[in-house]
Amino acid sequence: MAQPPAPTELAAILAREIPGLEILSDVASVQARSRDSWVRSLMKSRLEGPPSAAVVVRPGSAGEVAAVLAWADRTSTPVIPFGLGSGVCGAVLAQGREVVLDLGKMDRLLQVNGDTLTAVVEPGMRGSDFEAALAARGFTMGHWPQSIELSTVGGWCATRASGQFSTLYGNIEQMLLGCEVALANGRLLRLPSVPRAATGPDLKHLFVGSEGILGVFTELTFRIHPAPQRQLGRAFTMPTLRAGLEALRKIMRAGWTPAVTRLYDATEAGRNFTIIADGKPVLLLMSEGTEARVETEAAAIAAIVAGEGGIDRGDEPLRSWLDHRNNVPTFESLLEQGLVADTIEVAISWDRIGDLFETVCARGAKVQSVFAMSGHVSHCYTQGANIYFTFVGAQGDLDTAIRIYDEVWKTTIETTIELGGTIAHHHGIGRVRKPWLSREIGEGGVALLAALKRSFDPNGILNPGVLVDT
Amino acid sequence: MAQPPAPTELAAILAREIPGLEILSDVASVQARSRDSWVRSLMKSRLEGPPSAAVVVRPGSAGEVAAVLAWADRTSTPVIPFGLGSGVCGAVLAQGREVVLDLGKMDRLLQVNGDTLTAVVEPGMRGSDFEAALAARGFTMGHWPQSIELSTVGGWCATRASGQFSTLYGNIEQMLLGCEVALANGRLLRLPSVPRAATGPDLKHLFVGSEGILGVFTELTFRIHPAPQRQLGRAFTMPTLRAGLEALRKIMRAGWTPAVTRLYDATEAGRNFTIIADGKPVLLLMSEGTEARVETEAAAIAAIVAGEGGIDRGDEPLRSWLDHRNNVPTFESLLEQGLVADTIEVAISWDRIGDLFETVCARGAKVQSVFAMSGHVSHCYTQGANIYFTFVGAQGDLDTAIRIYDEVWKTTIETTIELGGTIAHHHGIGRVRKPWLSREIGEGGVALLAALKRSFDPNGILNPGVLVDT
Repeated sequence: MAQPPAPTELAAILAREIPGLEILSDVASVQARSRDSWVRSLMKSRLEGPPSAAVVVRPGSAGEVAAVLAWADRTSTPVIPFGLGSGVCGAVLAQGREVVLDLGKMDRLLQVNGDTLTAVVEPGMRGSDFEAALAARGFTMGHWPQSIELSTVGGWCATRASGQFSTLYGNIEQMLLGCEVALANGRLLRLPSVPRAATGPDLKHLFVGSEGILGVFTELTFRIHPAPQRQLGRAFTMPTLRAGLEALRKIMRAGWTPAVTRLYDATEAGRNFTIIADGKPVLLLMSEGTEARVETEAAAIAAIVAGEGGIDRGDEPLRSWLDHRNNVPTFESLLEQGLVADTIEVAISWDRIGDLFETVCARGAKVQSVFAMSGHVSHCYTQGANIYFTFVGAQGDLDTAIRIYDEVWKTTIETTIELGGTIAHHHGIGRVRKPWLSREIGEGGVALLAALKRSFDPNGILNPGVLVDT
Repeated sequence: MAQPPAPTELAAILAREIPGLEILSDVASVQARSRDSWVRSLMKSRLEGPPSAAVVVRPGSAGEVAAVLAWADRTSTPVIPFGLGSGVCGAVLAQGREVVLDLGKMDRLLQVNGDTLTAVVEPGMRGSDFEAALAARGFTMGHWPQSIELSTVGGWCATRASGQFSTLYGNIEQMLLGCEVALANGRLLRLPSVPRAATGPDLKHLFVGSEGILGVFTELTFRIHPAPQRQLGRAFTMPTLRAGLEALRKIMRAGWTPAVTRLYDATEAGRNFTIIADGKPVLLLMSEGTEARVETEAAAIAAIVAGEGGIDRGDEPLRSWLDHRNNVPTFESLLEQGLVADTIEVAISWDRIGDLFETVCARGAKVQSVFAMSGHVSHCYTQGANIYFTFVGAQGDLDTAIRIYDEVWKTTIETTIELGGTIAHHHGIGRVRKPWLSREIGEGGVALLAALKRSFDPNGILNPGVLVDT
């Protein structure tokens, strides 16, 4: 194979091949889009210098996306689809010769239909802009990831995102009704938005969570809802973590769907709700929707919580969380303070969640230099819930920090597999969880995914190195 | 290619290859499993004699299913997976040389977990047996297709089934949490049951609705629920069909999820609810679940219905429907009476559902010999709802009946496409809707499906002729 063209040459070729395409080739613009927010790659960058793709293109339409892919397929050029880079698993990490496909210019809200409660939007729209535009029209999608100001609607679909209100509104795969996807060969696939269909397998699920390896979303149709008439919720302290888990299990079992279902262990409760926590776990519950539904639900779930020994601490801690929920320290700022930290989220069924929670916290805390391993539950289902673990350790030098990092991850993921949980509730696989994917879906599942990859992208141009190898 | 072996020879080969495998080769057993309940194939059978596969095998385990597929793949023998044959779209229709893979012996309920609200079951269990076994333990899955006594849990997944209570419990794709699938190459794929995961695309959606062309379900893990504490509902007469549709739209919009949401047009209301209908459409609504939720919901939705001019006709018509809902005349019995009849169900968004309902009924009634074209709505969403059309015509001779049949289908499906609906809400594609699949998911979608088929089943052994050609 011929030597790949140098970045400047690549920019010139692209400019010639796709007239009018916006191309960025200055170092700062390219490096800013050559990795996501994975802590490990951030640490590696500090040691070895930042990763860099060859060039960035910023298509303004599905046609331009398709043209870039058709060209890349013809020339076997690797392409990394890019939203806003808020991913935390290393799904974006350039190796040197990629074209980054930055979708940020495709940021228009194309249509809001108040009768069918659907919104059609381009993939590069920032999440918070999308929700603000819906709010201005009296609607919400109800998808509120912590990253909402740092992520795009297309990124949500590519990574199988969840929002903080998922227990009511569902996760992104329940919100996505239809889509247009650009395939590796440059063809556009349109899957219609219909209330529900039995017209063969639901093909959009092939792309939701595909982390850019099977296609690129170019248009999305989402389910939306009228803005809620009412929000009603409380904070509770729980006698034990297991009492909190039991309350959540019973709430789900009874068919309630409060938007917010957050249970913090004593460590995180002490960190986030200093005044009320008093060494106890804290449970936040909030219902939203129409008046009648919200009032009935809030009363019923409060009774369930009381039955598990929960003590009502009023609505102020909930309000405070709602106001500040997305203000978290960046990993960068923690590294500056000499710390190494990350979050690892998993999910497991109710019969094992207490064991997993305690075992991971105990084992994580034993890793050298780790001084806090804690967790909270934030997404609940009839079967079980997620756990969002956080660890903080002393950094030492960066090589040591990376060693600590890898060890906590290994401990957490392997304990999760040992107890029968899933290794990723909503952050995805990327590169950080890739070694364990076969433990989750089996060698057979990985083989199937690789077969899909070969079938859809025979030249392997789309985000190579992520999810599976072919 | 060599001549395929004769049926008796095939039975002998299979007996030798897979010792212990149950094999049926008598004409009655084979013919009984060589087609589903598609009316058109029933009429064709009367004209041309019944279709017949070569032989039937009845595996008793996933291992036997895998062994049959591995052998079939090696020998390029077509295989038709078979549940109980209640499909109405011709997804089961033997051409002569197939092995029918009857899953009826794999009918065990393997596990019910009351904490995680999950049930593990083999694919061949009859739906009504499954619900009865759950009920005996205090649970329900909430999946109540009209065919529940005539269909299997595996068939539900293979066809993307919906039940009569879907507005509360969801459709089969929301109930299926994990599965084991035998692939065409004889390998078994296990996809774990977890509360929710972001571990690449959710691969089980490749098989849900694949109508037997991509794999065979050998084990299913479903979400279940505690048996409801309470059922509460009413019948209403509505001033017009559009008033009924508007009531349903507003109910969904407000976030309510009554289990039963059925709106019959005046024709069907007159047929089914003679005493109350009085020339008006009839709306049935029923909530179920915990006391508090059900009472709040029932009151709120009754108020919405009253706002659209609905008149409360008490709960007796609802009770009567609940008791008799699955007693419908067989297509066979209608044919015996000199009639030609079928149901055609589609779905569409709220802003067009009234137009579609009226246009199809008007156009269908104009088809020669059709004396009734009517419909009801039974599955509601925030975006829209399904319409379940029924037509009845005078048969004339069978050739005429088939011509009428084809014309009503063509009119209904093409009108649905014209107005932007989906051509199948839950009955599937099979053979009857196959000509229109590309109008739904585009040539690109059909090409993608064909690529999946080639990738998963390169020798084309699994239910050839259904969904797509390769």
